[in-house]
Amino acid sequence: MPHLVILYTPQLDAECDMTALCRRLADTMLAQRDDEGRPVFPVGGTRVLAYPAAHHAVADGSGDHAFAWFHLRMARGRPEALRQRIGEALVAAARAQLAPLLAARPLGLTLQVEEGAESFDGRFGNLHASFGAPRA
Amino acid sequence: MPHLVILYTPQLDAECDMTALCRRLADTMLAQRDDEGRPVFPVGGTRVLAYPAAHHAVADGSGDHAFAWFHLRMARGRPEALRQRIGEALVAAARAQLAPLLAARPLGLTLQVEEGAESFDGRFGNLHASFGAPRA
Amino acid sequence: MPHLVILYTPQLDAECDMTALCRRLADTMLAQRDDEGRPVFPVGGTRVLAYPAAHHAVADGSGDHAFAWFHLRMARGRPEALRQRIGEALVAAARAQLAPLLAARPLGLTLQVEEGAESFDGRFGNLHASFGAPRA
Repeated sequence: MPHLVILYTPQLDAECDMTALCRRLADTMLAQRDDEGRPVFPVGGTRVLAYPAAHHAVADGSGDHAFAWFHLRMARGRPEALRQRIGEALVAAARAQLAPLLAARPLGLTLQVEEGAESFDGRFGNLHASFGAPRA
Repeated sequence: MPHLVILYTPQLDAECDMTALCRRLADTMLAQRDDEGRPVFPVGGTRVLAYPAAHHAVADGSGDHAFAWFHLRMARGRPEALRQRIGEALVAAARAQLAPLLAARPLGLTLQVEEGAESFDGRFGNLHASFGAPRA
Repeated sequence: MPHLVILYTPQLDAECDMTALCRRLADTMLAQRDDEGRPVFPVGGTRVLAYPAAHHAVADGSGDHAFAWFHLRMARGRPEALRQRIGEALVAAARAQLAPLLAARPLGLTLQVEEGAESFDGRFGNLHASFGAPRA
């Protein structure tokens, strides 16, 4: 972790560069620092995955409403103020990237930060080792 | 919120109208009322997204078993009885829509209602403003 | 339940047999036994669904980094030691299946086991009935 999963309505694929948005959000996560100035997230654990829905229904169906849900899952135990700061930084990055769309069409955007509730957490790849690995 | 995400095995796309199911479930959410008769969910926050899996394995692999998982995530703090009522209404809607399939093939169906555990919740789109916005 | 959802970067589809991995992980779940030797999971409730992302960003973007996140959600209330054992069995199965890939490319792998936090749990399909149905 952190894992940022974006679930969205598929018309957005024709209207914005979702791959660029993923990259920008990953870079935003990597830029986060704690109160001592240390990186919050490990490079090798930072991942953004985006999924257009195959089918959807938004609001009352009265128009071509788009929607994207940004769901960040990160390790437990970071200070509340830090979690707020991370959420606000990601909202600012997504808002900047999507500003042309927001000015042009109906678009619901929700970004949520959640601490993982896992009782087992196995990491068995090789990315952390290649980048060096603090906690996610 | 509410966000209803449907994860399902892909053979269902050829056997039922998943877009119609999304719409029906969104309409079911919009029809929910609390004990005072007020709408439970905000119009602009109601979203259903459906995703067929690219790969899957169900049960012991002994047949062409299909499966759909309906996962509703909504804001914290609503009464237990109301959450049960919402869950039952959605099950009834999905069961009615899928009745021909249920009569014709092996099909696992699970619908779960969960309150969000997010510690940061940013909403930065324009849908709520266009519809008016109580809590999700 | 159990529901195992795999979210992964799409280049893996060309490099491994993801359907075979789903089957192996389902079989691994079905092989789990509690301290009394009874099956942990119901056959009809065991499901694995895998989703390649349409867009992604991993780590710092410095290379073709792949990633797969295995997220197992199961019913609440099983002993901690059993949950660890299940997680370790799934990691071992995935690691064995993906060994050639792990030797050949940068690949992040995370497997998490989480107990469901649902407040409503409706099951309305016919798979449990056809297989016999203890708790998920």
